[in-house]
Amino acid sequence: MKPYCFAIDRIIPSEDASLHPLDIGLIRGYAVFDFFRTVDYHPLFLEDYLDRFIASAAKAHLVLDQGHEELKSIVLELIQKNDLKQGGIRMVLSGGNSDNHFSPTKGSLFIFCEALQMPSDDKYRNGVHLLTTEYIRPVPEIKTTNYALPVYLSKDWKANNAEDVLYHADGIISESSRSNIFIVKDGTISTPKTNILKGITRKNILALVPDAQIRDITLEEVMAADEVFMSSTTKRILPITKIDHQPISNGAVGTRTTALMEQFKRMEEETVS
Amino acid sequence: MKPYCFAIDRIIPSEDASLHPLDIGLIRGYAVFDFFRTVDYHPLFLEDYLDRFIASAAKAHLVLDQGHEELKSIVLELIQKNDLKQGGIRMVLSGGNSDNHFSPTKGSLFIFCEALQMPSDDKYRNGVHLLTTEYIRPVPEIKTTNYALPVYLSKDWKANNAEDVLYHADGIISESSRSNIFIVKDGTISTPKTNILKGITRKNILALVPDAQIRDITLEEVMAADEVFMSSTTKRILPITKIDHQPISNGAVGTRTTALMEQFKRMEEETVS
Repeated sequence: MKPYCFAIDRIIPSEDASLHPLDIGLIRGYAVFDFFRTVDYHPLFLEDYLDRFIASAAKAHLVLDQGHEELKSIVLELIQKNDLKQGGIRMVLSGGNSDNHFSPTKGSLFIFCEALQMPSDDKYRNGVHLLTTEYIRPVPEIKTTNYALPVYLSKDWKANNAEDVLYHADGIISESSRSNIFIVKDGTISTPKTNILKGITRKNILALVPDAQIRDITLEEVMAADEVFMSSTTKRILPITKIDHQPISNGAVGTRTTALMEQFKRMEEETVS
Repeated sequence: MKPYCFAIDRIIPSEDASLHPLDIGLIRGYAVFDFFRTVDYHPLFLEDYLDRFIASAAKAHLVLDQGHEELKSIVLELIQKNDLKQGGIRMVLSGGNSDNHFSPTKGSLFIFCEALQMPSDDKYRNGVHLLTTEYIRPVPEIKTTNYALPVYLSKDWKANNAEDVLYHADGIISESSRSNIFIVKDGTISTPKTNILKGITRKNILALVPDAQIRDITLEEVMAADEVFMSSTTKRILPITKIDHQPISNGAVGTRTTALMEQFKRMEEETVS
């Protein structure tokens, strides 16, 4: 973590930030958050992330004192104070210290700046491995801190040389634990429609691929796809070349994925220039 | 909350307790906990609760420095310092402040004493209303702090004059958000076998009813039962007389449930005397 953070109503040293442990953010795992990157001091796609964070708080019945413009000016001040040329910014709003230790109430807002390690070149070149898990994230349209299942499973990923999970239910896939999923088949790109968090990277990919299909996708289709990739803030576009130890197509990164990875990087560069 | 708590390695004023907000207990909702009651200064069924808490930590890959006997002596000291004649004791172990903001690491232990309101006499006399939700709690055998879904739904319970949820999946019920479920049909008591947290109150009820069936129970069976009740530390045995606005049997509290409520209270009294 970088030296300065925003806590409740002011910028303070990050190490002094403190949450009371009886906040339902801890004892009931009830909080919302968001996460974005800086590129050359520029907070990438900031407006979209702030809009989503504000919407998450509202949908989760949590009160956020700060509006869009105030959050933006806090973020810009933190980037400067932390000299955050390339890094991650995490905003968290806790559920608050509730009388009955259950109901949402007035919570605390924290904004931290962090060093950020993007996936290795090797992962972009050779793709990664996902393990399927039968699960739908509760209230998936809200960016909650509800990661108990994937954190629990992450020990298993390491043992299986996997990057993350692929959630599915009733034969339909939804998302990975922190990423959206896309498939390429016969030149058409598709991405799941339901039970997902609408990623900002997903939104930008859909802008680059206006004829992409947004629809229910079966796990069978994924396994038979020509190419599969995941998208997220901290991964951009990352090829998936293996699922449950089975190679996708010939097991190599596909041409469409490679082209999109380049297009997305250019989009990023144009945004910050 | 009562004036004193245990935090990490010592007893301190409860208001001074503090968790760093980047602990994955907050940012990933990853923590385990347990909760029990005192009756006349006696921590009820303490051994069972401590065993379960220690097991939850181990299953969740979390390191707990204190063993059974040390936890017990901290709890007894807290009861004394807080003059906790009747109340609740909450133990929480967070996932820790992880380098990658995801993997479990060395967390912080907190133990708080709280005032505790048991359900009203009216609820014991007339029973309560549950609303069904299709869901299985992830890793249900571990007492995690993963309550994001029921906290989110709790606004809806209030609007429907309901007490809590009843989870089911593929037609089979599992549990309520913080309670186990029992049904009575033709004189036989049954309780779900899978996808549940094994409650200490459930364990004690099963000791009182040695011929109870532990098996998969369909939602249909629940709706057609003679009696339904829930069990938990903070509710003991609480009759359920309505599910999804439909009365169970004639909508009144059944005789078997009433008898068990009395038996359980006597068991409690014998334990503390």
